[in-house]
This record gives sequence, structure tokens and C-alpha cells, in this order.
Amino acid sequence: KNRYSVTLLPGDGIGPEVISVAKDVLSLSASLEGIALQFEEMRVGGAAIDADGVPLPEETLSVARQSDAVLLGAIGGYKWDSNVRELKPETGLLKLREGLGVFANLRPATVLPQLVDSSTLKREVAEGVDIMVVRELTGGIYFGNPRGFGKNDNGEDIGFNTEVYAASEIDRIAHIAFETARKRRGRLCSVDKANVLEASVLWRKRVTNVASEYPDVQLSHMYVDNAAMQLVRDPKQFDTIVTNNIFGDILSDEASMITGSIGMLPSASLGESGPGLFEPIHGSAPDIAGQDEANPLATVLSAAMLLRYGLGEENAAKRIENAVLETLDKGFRTGDIFSAGKVLVGCRRMGEEVLKS
Amino acid sequence: KNRYSVTLLPGDGIGPEVISVAKDVLSLSASLEGIALQFEEMRVGGAAIDADGVPLPEETLSVARQSDAVLLGAIGGYKWDSNVRELKPETGLLKLREGLGVFANLRPATVLPQLVDSSTLKREVAEGVDIMVVRELTGGIYFGNPRGFGKNDNGEDIGFNTEVYAASEIDRIAHIAFETARKRRGRLCSVDKANVLEASVLWRKRVTNVASEYPDVQLSHMYVDNAAMQLVRDPKQFDTIVTNNIFGDILSDEASMITGSIGMLPSASLGESGPGLFEPIHGSAPDIAGQDEANPLATVLSAAMLLRYGLGEENAAKRIENAVLETLDKGFRTGDIFSAGKVLVGCRRMGEEVLKS
Ligand SMILES: CC(C)[C@H](C(=O)O)[C@@H](O)C(=O)O
Ligand SMILES: CC(C)[C@H](C(=O)O)[C@@H](O)C(=O)O
Repeated sequence: KNRYSVTLLPGDGIGPEVISVAKDVLSLSASLEGIALQFEEMRVGGAAIDADGVPLPEETLSVARQSDAVLLGAIGGYKWDSNVRELKPETGLLKLREGLGVFANLRPATVLPQLVDSSTLKREVAEGVDIMVVRELTGGIYFGNPRGFGKNDNGEDIGFNTEVYAASEIDRIAHIAFETARKRRGRLCSVDKANVLEASVLWRKRVTNVASEYPDVQLSHMYVDNAAMQLVRDPKQFDTIVTNNIFGDILSDEASMITGSIGMLPSASLGESGPGLFEPIHGSAPDIAGQDEANPLATVLSAAMLLRYGLGEENAAKRIENAVLETLDKGFRTGDIFSAGKVLVGCRRMGEEVLKS
Repeated sequence: KNRYSVTLLPGDGIGPEVISVAKDVLSLSASLEGIALQFEEMRVGGAAIDADGVPLPEETLSVARQSDAVLLGAIGGYKWDSNVRELKPETGLLKLREGLGVFANLRPATVLPQLVDSSTLKREVAEGVDIMVVRELTGGIYFGNPRGFGKNDNGEDIGFNTEVYAASEIDRIAHIAFETARKRRGRLCSVDKANVLEASVLWRKRVTNVASEYPDVQLSHMYVDNAAMQLVRDPKQFDTIVTNNIFGDILSDEASMITGSIGMLPSASLGESGPGLFEPIHGSAPDIAGQDEANPLATVLSAAMLLRYGLGEENAAKRIENAVLETLDKGFRTGDIFSAGKVLVGCRRMGEEVLKS
């Protein structure tokens, strides 16, 4: 197959700017490999709330489902912050993940040699960090029922959510994590809070079971509070991390900031079958939206992940990754990764330089 | 009043060593201020499981309740890791917190000028960090019901927990947090995940309500994933942080590691009335237990918090804090905070040096 359809979801804030750059890079690298991509752009998040009255229009989900892969910019903004849940941009993203069944979220946190000084960690601590966080994405407390508001026995207002995992949900993410670790340095750290939470006790038990199918991968367990510390103390101790939805949200963001270049970090969300969802891990950055200041490289690298994991087009993926490294080697930097002696560029110009590389 | 009873709970691992040092320091500083302390030592955690068959014997709780303050070492160890929940050391600690009603956990994360190089963060990022995390300690997902194991509709094993907060639980911790911020630099950051969780939506609403009673404190809100990043990116932006039990567990540990000297950090857990619970934030460190290598200063500084917050004896508290700073100024360091040119000492010797200072 050398024709694919890609759904583009620019979303909110800096989303449209970074998607526009990533689309051009994606097109070029694909055509250089003799691959034809057909794009369809749809609305999600705040943009969809404003235009369609819901954060995930049915049409968006159905187009996304029928395509071969989905590339998302970012969603959210102050404007919609006080909306009820059903009308929050975030709810659109959660429904999209659920609707596509993409339960496995791969979030690399890599310190590039070119950018090691962007980290707030000492050079010797940051240098060489290369972590892959495998986050469970369609279960746990984000989706668990019952949830909502109510009254307790004293007639007081309460708010509640349910953290719940079923054995099969844990098993399938564990398999992805072991496969991922096997292709990396062969070490997997499963993070939970099994000393307190039953949901974590089951998590640890099932992950330990699945481990017997991967004798070549070395499994360890860590409590989430300790993991939050160890990422700061010595991030190099980690290879692959697997954890639940909420812990993965927190730890992958912490890990990304440890690299110092969150504007550089892509992610891939994959299911059993059907299209994967690819998105930068940064948010919609409403403060700099529309000012041509955003770093498009996280989305460009997400496009590379789309080619690799979503379409199986390794060569085109490598092309993009090499072009990004070359652009950095030439000294081009957006504001977030700028340092003395480098060439400060905006979002569009950064895209043009990648296209040239 | 100048007579107080203090319950000592050495617990497991390095607990007994650090408590022994802290007891001596506490006695001396109290007697120099004309205060008489009467100590009673009780069992908790793994030590209690082994001797009494439960992690929190009734007698321990009742002695603790009747005393004026409780000083805890640490609990836990590999030995009990695979016990069922009712027989885990951690359950003893949770029951103790619940039994004492200490819903407000104050965890300072301060970078001392003497130890700024212990941080893995660059000097300019770490220098001057002074954060107080106010963690809700007796509610949320740690205590919420329903919890346990069961089957889902497909007959599969599930594990589940409930994150739940009632309005009054949020209000009382918010009051403590605003009072704390008022005595510090007047800024309070409330951390939640209100873009996804209903429990967090109620949290944000109640904290915002309480804010109207503290016009002199500047309140901001932050999502937990962003907070985990911001602590790494620029920890100096924070003054006081207030958050729920599980987010507080994770973020306070992350913040403590940012200081680079977790062996130095104390904590205080306070209720409406009754004795407070004081403990170092580090764990039981089974790997170095019994080897006279532990850093006793976190427990010594917890004893200072006990004097200040538990007994209202500010002068005696200051004595201890000054003695610790003086000991550091003289160059004494345990292994965890050692750097070239300093004097490496063990746990007992560090205690002796504090007593001399
Ligand atoms: C926007 C929000 C719902 C989302 C999440 O928490 O999953 C984001 O923080 C992320 O990590 O992708
Ligand atoms: C031991 C454990 C139950 C405890 C907690 O999670 O509260 C510890 O991690 C802490 O932070 O005091």
C-alpha cells in the first residue's frame, strides 16, 4: 500500500500553526518515498465547541476512524475552562482516545545532545536520558464509573471518581510495554501505588504474570511517589516505564520537563487495530497562540511516529527525524529551546528549515 | 504548661536509629528551655506486625491519642511487601493518621544554602527554593469507599478505589493552607485535575470559595501534570501548594528530591485538635538499616516541628533548627549529603554533633 488517508485535527491555541508545519513536512517526506497521503482536516476541542456545540463532533470521529492515522495539534484554552465537563475541550480529546480505542500511549523523553543545556538538571544528570513512558490511556480514573457529584450522609456536597482496572486492560498495556522494552534496552519499570490501592495491587499482579512471557525483559516495580523522586534524582536509571492513566499523565509530563525540551516531544497512541493517534505532548499554549512563536518540532516528530507506528513507513519516518536533527545542528532554535549563539526562528521558519534539510 | 508527653514510634528500617538521635536532641533542647518531656515508645508498622500481629495495635493508638504529640521514624520493608492490605506496614500508618484525625500534612521543601549542590538541578534553579506542600492526608482515594477486588460484567477480575472529597474536607484543608501561605510569602497554588475529574472540580470550587476569606493571599490553580513539570522547570515560582492526598504524595516527594536532600526534610500532620504526628518524609530505607549510615536530621527537624506546631514551644524548636544549621556549617555530613571537603559521619555521630551545637 502506498496511499494513505490522514486525519488532521489542528484543535486550539498553537494547534493550527504546528499542524500546518507538520503537514508540509509529512507531505514532502512521504512523496520523496513514493507515498501518497490524502489529508482531511476536522474540528476537535474548543474549536469544535465554538463551531459545532460539542468538543468531538460525530463527523470528526467517523472521519478519523475511517482514516489510516490521526495527527492532532493541541486542545484547550482559558475560554472553555469553566464549561461543564461535557463541554470541555479535554472531554473531546478523551472521547477521541476512547472512540479510537487507543489504549497505549507511548511518550518518549529523550535528551538530544544538541539540547542538553535546555534541561534544568545538571548536564551530567540530563545527558543521555532516554526514557519511554508507556501510559494506559483509555481506563482508570479518567473513565471509571461511578463518577460525578452528590451528597454524603451529612447532606454535604461530594465529588467522586472511580479508579478501576480490569485484568485484560492491564494485560494488553503490559504486552505493549514489554514489546517496547524488548526493542529498547530490555528494562521495564512498572509504576503503581500497590502499598495503598487495590487497583494497583491488581496492576502489579497482572504485570508480573505477563512478565513470564518476556524472559528477556527485566521487570521492576516502583511506587509512584518514589518514581516522581527518582526521575529527578537519576533519570538515567529508567529505560521503559509502564503505568496507569493518571500516574502516566503526571510522570510523563515530569519526564518530559526533565529533558528541558517539551516543545520537542512527540507521542503515539495505539490500539489493537484501527488508526493510531499522534500528538505532541505539549498543550495548546494559548499565551503564544497565533504569534508564530510555537516550536513545531514536537508535532513534526509526532508525524514521524505516525509514519513509523501508524503506517509502517520507517524510511519516511527516518527522513523526518534526520531532517529535524540536521536543522538543530544548523543552529536553528525556537524561543523555548534557544540558547546564546543559536539562530532564533519562529514556527513557520523552523518548518521551512526542516523542509530544506 | 511545661510538661508534655511524647509518643515515640520508631517503626521499621532506619526508624529506630533516627528516632534515638531525635529523642536525645528533643530532650536536651526541651530541658534547656525548662520543659519536661516524658517519652513513651510504642510499636507500629512492620515491627508491630511481627510482635502483635497487626500494623497498628490498639494500645499504640490509644497511647498516641492521649499524648501531646507523636514522633514517628519510618515504616515498611520488603519483608511485608506481599502481605494483604490489612497486614501491610503502610496500613498501620494510614490508620494512625486516620485515628489521630491529622488531615493536614505540612511538607516543607527547602534548599539550604549549605546543601544547594546536593540538588541534581542547576545551582541557579535550585538556589533559594522554599516550598511548603500542604497535603490533605485523611481523605481521597487512600480512604474512599467502595474499594477492593471484584468481577466486571465479563467475569474478569477488577481492582477498584474511589477518589471522593466532601465539601467540609476540602474547606478545612484549604483554611490550613491559606493560613500557612499567609505566614509565608502570601501565595497559594491549588493543584488538581479539574479538567477531567469531578472530585477535582469540587476541590477547585471550594478552595476558590474559601479564598474570599483570605484577600491577602494570592490564589492560583494548576493541573497536576503541569505542576509536576513546573516543579522541575522553575521550582522557585512556588510558595505554598495545597492538594489532595494522592497528588500531595507524588508532588511532595518530587519537590523534596528537587532540594537534593530528602534526608533533611521533616513533616508535620495536624488535626482540628489532639496530638499532631511528626515524621521525616523519607522512608525506612531497609538497605542501610542498622548500619549507622542514615541521616537523622529529617527526624531531628521533625522534632523541631513537633515543638513548634505540636507543643507551641517556639524557642525550643528554634534551638534545634539552629543546632542543625551549625552542625552543617561545621561541615558534618552523612553519606546522602556528602560532598568533597566535608566530614563524613554516621547517624549517631551526626546526632552527637547536633547535641554539641
Ligand atoms: C488534556 C488532558 C485531558 C490530557 C490528559 O490528562 O490526558 C493531557 O494532559 C495529556 O496528558 O494528554
Ligand atoms: C507509606 C505510604 C502509605 C505513605 C503515603 O503514601 O502516604 C508515604 O508514601 C508518605 O508519603 O508518607
